[in-house]
Amino acid sequence: MTDDDRLIDRVPQPPDVPSRLAAQIAFIVEVDRLKTVLRRSVLVADDRRENDAEHSWHLALMVTVLAEYADEPIDVGRTLKLVLLHDLVEIYAGDTFLYDEEGAATQEAREREAADRLFALLPDDQCAGFRALWDEFEERRTPEARFAKAMDRLQPLLLNYNNKGGTWRTPGVTDADVRRRKSVIGDASADLWSYARTLIAEGTRREWLPAADA
Amino acid sequence: MTDDDRLIDRVPQPPDVPSRLAAQIAFIVEVDRLKTVLRRSVLVADDRRENDAEHSWHLALMVTVLAEYADEPIDVGRTLKLVLLHDLVEIYAGDTFLYDEEGAATQEAREREAADRLFALLPDDQCAGFRALWDEFEERRTPEARFAKAMDRLQPLLLNYNNKGGTWRTPGVTDADVRRRKSVIGDASADLWSYARTLIAEGTRREWLPAADA
Repeated sequence: MTDDDRLIDRVPQPPDVPSRLAAQIAFIVEVDRLKTVLRRSVLVADDRRENDAEHSWHLALMVTVLAEYADEPIDVGRTLKLVLLHDLVEIYAGDTFLYDEEGAATQEAREREAADRLFALLPDDQCAGFRALWDEFEERRTPEARFAKAMDRLQPLLLNYNNKGGTWRTPGVTDADVRRRKSVIGDASADLWSYARTLIAEGTRREWLPAADA
Repeated sequence: MTDDDRLIDRVPQPPDVPSRLAAQIAFIVEVDRLKTVLRRSVLVADDRRENDAEHSWHLALMVTVLAEYADEPIDVGRTLKLVLLHDLVEIYAGDTFLYDEEGAATQEAREREAADRLFALLPDDQCAGFRALWDEFEERRTPEARFAKAMDRLQPLLLNYNNKGGTWRTPGVTDADVRRRKSVIGDASADLWSYARTLIAEGTRREWLPAADA
């Protein structure tokens, strides 16, 4: 893909727009692509796969409702920004399924390249700001980033449980795998990790998720 | 629809979840429905209609990028919450098209009833908090609410322009109608209203939108 593939370049833009605003608009139009990046998870409300934009919105709403369960105080506004932009790199790098070991090997490099390219559409100061927020989310060194990551792991668990399995039914996946991949929830909130383990245990008991020792 | 129609009631929930958390989870699962409420607008990145969850996410990202154009200082975190939840009532009330005069007549009553019902899923304190934020958005008496509303009006304008018309091609709609319906952008930001008028004028010049005086 070259710079000519920006969505904004498909139609002539109006003349005399200040260059800073024009760059911001180019970014805002470009991120429309996030609505076309499909995840593996299936909605509860409909029988189709979720896309990254819907997923990001859902995480933001979860932050608003569940912030009180954070073990360390969090700045809700910054946590919202972290979840709103955390998947943007998938516009160019694609979604990597949580249980895809092969994709995981190249994921970091692909996503860094995508971040470089996407955030460069913005004016320099905002490019740096978005990149810093994305790095913060990835590195999980702040309470906000840990809580954002916990939401990112809890949300598909809610979809799977309420779909009586969903992606839990991926061949080879067991309750032990799910527990291991979801354990980062416990880095942000003991209460929500306890709830997540309850969902996994109850889903296993109901045979929506195979038990490792079965 | 009765309370039995909550998405959470479709499958047995795990036992021994604290009642406050169980109520919050019921709300979080219920709002999955927002991903199934279709708007009239068509994406730029794909040839299909946008849903309310994607739209809400897009507004939140626009707040993050464009906050500097607010004519009065805004609290970005609260503005994010306003756009993230502003369309939730459409889960039960449906989307009312901006140029649908008939739907507009009953819209307020339908949406108030939907808000009462949806937010009641939450614990009382959060029900009151969400309702206050939704009322704030609707009443537009704060700089945050005016900016949130401006994003809600600017975003479909960006989709329409970059689709060479989109819903501008609704029979009977002219540039004068669009300018009138979009003028609330000017209540939040002179710069963004100037940009919006440029989009409308250029779209009219290119015949993607009929001129009232044509």
